[in-house]
Amino acid sequence: MTETVDGGITAPAGFRAAGVACGIKKKTGALDLALIVADEPVAAAAVFTTNLAVAAPVVVSREHLAASGGRAQAIAINSGCANACTGASGLQVARDMGAAAAAAAECRTEHVLVASTGVIGVALDIAKIRHGISAATHALSRSGGADAMRAIMTTDPFPKSHAVSSQTAAGRFTVGGIAKGSGMIEPKMATMIGVLTTDVRIEPAVFARALRHVVDRTFNAITVDGECSTNDCVFAMASGQSPVVVSRDDDPAFLDALTAVAGHLAREIVRGGEGATKLVTLHVGGAASDADAQLAARTIANSPLVKTAIHGGDPNWGRLVAAAGRSGAAFVLDRASVSIADVPLFVSGVPHDERADAAAVILQAREIRIAIDLGTGGSHSATMWTCDFSAEYVRINAEYRT
Amino acid sequence: MTETVDGGITAPAGFRAAGVACGIKKKTGALDLALIVADEPVAAAAVFTTNLAVAAPVVVSREHLAASGGRAQAIAINSGCANACTGASGLQVARDMGAAAAAAAECRTEHVLVASTGVIGVALDIAKIRHGISAATHALSRSGGADAMRAIMTTDPFPKSHAVSSQTAAGRFTVGGIAKGSGMIEPKMATMIGVLTTDVRIEPAVFARALRHVVDRTFNAITVDGECSTNDCVFAMASGQSPVVVSRDDDPAFLDALTAVAGHLAREIVRGGEGATKLVTLHVGGAASDADAQLAARTIANSPLVKTAIHGGDPNWGRLVAAAGRSGAAFVLDRASVSIADVPLFVSGVPHDERADAAAVILQAREIRIAIDLGTGGSHSATMWTCDFSAEYVRINAEYRT
Repeated sequence: MTETVDGGITAPAGFRAAGVACGIKKKTGALDLALIVADEPVAAAAVFTTNLAVAAPVVVSREHLAASGGRAQAIAINSGCANACTGASGLQVARDMGAAAAAAAECRTEHVLVASTGVIGVALDIAKIRHGISAATHALSRSGGADAMRAIMTTDPFPKSHAVSSQTAAGRFTVGGIAKGSGMIEPKMATMIGVLTTDVRIEPAVFARALRHVVDRTFNAITVDGECSTNDCVFAMASGQSPVVVSRDDDPAFLDALTAVAGHLAREIVRGGEGATKLVTLHVGGAASDADAQLAARTIANSPLVKTAIHGGDPNWGRLVAAAGRSGAAFVLDRASVSIADVPLFVSGVPHDERADAAAVILQAREIRIAIDLGTGGSHSATMWTCDFSAEYVRINAEYRT
Repeated sequence: MTETVDGGITAPAGFRAAGVACGIKKKTGALDLALIVADEPVAAAAVFTTNLAVAAPVVVSREHLAASGGRAQAIAINSGCANACTGASGLQVARDMGAAAAAAAECRTEHVLVASTGVIGVALDIAKIRHGISAATHALSRSGGADAMRAIMTTDPFPKSHAVSSQTAAGRFTVGGIAKGSGMIEPKMATMIGVLTTDVRIEPAVFARALRHVVDRTFNAITVDGECSTNDCVFAMASGQSPVVVSRDDDPAFLDALTAVAGHLAREIVRGGEGATKLVTLHVGGAASDADAQLAARTIANSPLVKTAIHGGDPNWGRLVAAAGRSGAAFVLDRASVSIADVPLFVSGVPHDERADAAAVILQAREIRIAIDLGTGGSHSATMWTCDFSAEYVRINAEYRT
């Protein structure tokens, strides 16, 4: 039995966290440095951006995780500056940030993960980071998850935190998490960072596979605008303080709990997407392969014409068909179908435009389900979450940074 | 010597055209049927949409061109209804439209090409089409290019026509063309259709290769919103009435003239893109392969963050770097460079943000050049044309069709 619990990232046993203001964000007193510390070096896993324009902290965290064999004790994250596209000096700053966190947590440097989010191409001030890490170290507490959550926000419209606790035959375990999303109201913000914690006992290799599985179905199944940032990363740490041992990467109870937290945070990122007014759950079925299902889902979920139609409450199934058709996935027009909000508007290649007005009424809701069958007769499917595309998105991203 | 001439699609010898109103568009008297007729069956070539959700007229035109071995005498195009996603009955309408045009032009059905552009998923009224083809036949003239041009428009902000004449040692030849673009102000409009005419003598197979070469560098090198429609097609006919014989698909004078017309029309489509206020010429260099150069160029040209930054006049080079990095093309951050409007803002991995204000001033222009070097040391490059992304685009496409 899995239930939602309070406490977010510090809900699982074995973690303390803090969020402090160290002056990187321009607004005085704004929290901009988060520190999450385990009681000792614990199993850790991460999924990083696939962008080749990779930010310095991502380079450093990858190196540390490889050197430690999947163990970490501290995670340090700043907001307000992405430390991306900052050359050799930026890489040194990221290393120094890791060293400072290691000194504070009294652990080896390779047991620190670092992340940054904010403006690209601007130097990160290591003096401010050192000061922030020092202050955060003194503020670490078992109830510090909420401050850590706020310290990683850039211009997210609301903070994102979730935790669940699960009772199994072997005992109870908890999974918590925080995330920051794509609130790029100040231009040049990098996009998403997530941190998951749990108290299960799990080997790093098993943890890494389980995290990859869950991230592919949660954080990697959302889109706001199709952009993949230079700084995206999801970190996970397992304290091992619960009696529950997870020995397989397909452990159902653990995957369910991890998916519940990561999925909740992922959908909250979409809901808080720039200019978003609607959360859309898109289901693609009838695909010839998993890859095709995902390709079609991603193309539809990022289509400007689909996203603007949803914004306007227009049940414009033709745009969904056109996006599926150009996606590169196998697609059989004469057997394809589209339902918007449970109203079948295109069935086995035949339009039912007379139902458009009924669909338009349902499309006024804040949460919308859309289903498309690619008509190949295949049984593969994929689910993605996206948001609508509003004039507000353009306004947010067109403003010249000041 | 190549010079711009008047007359558009009827500038080359051997073609008559007409545009009439047959009641498919809702507005009374709006031209909505174009007919372009050669004096006899002539060499013809076409490039069609790669979208698998292919519209009925595209299916029919492909069949006809294959059956005729690359010869055509008449092209019939209606606007106001795309005849796409209309099932078996829609396919029959497209065939009937071809038969009507063949009867009118007194040629074999396989010598007719048909195209439709407008709302997806709505039945095309064949009675109106027959009436329009009949009226257009009587209106055909050597000066009818302008009416044909207007009859293929949906909600393009301005008509698009161009012609050039070229003097060679063998004599003079002319290339003309019309195009309709991505003015999808009434939702569910399909996007681009182009028709090119010339009076050179050329074999169909050579013509087809030359057209493909030119289309890849013009119509296929533009983007407004990354969408590929169900109805896109470019038709070309060569009357052979000039003394100039084109025997090779790499004939420089012919390719230059064809590229001049197609390139002009393609850039006009971008300039008239939905909500567009700026025409951007994007040059990607330093790529490891042509495919990589095009992949990076297409990703940048379609990036919502890049396009909104350009709209706002924000010299946000970090977004260009991030888009290149996620494109899938080989990319070396430490050797990559970005110039916006001739101002180097990122040089061999080092930011020059101090020049941002200078770039911002230049970005106020209506035409903007952007260059990015992927830093691989490769010598491959690609050029694409795109436009900015405005709130007006969202407004246009979010309105529920009435």
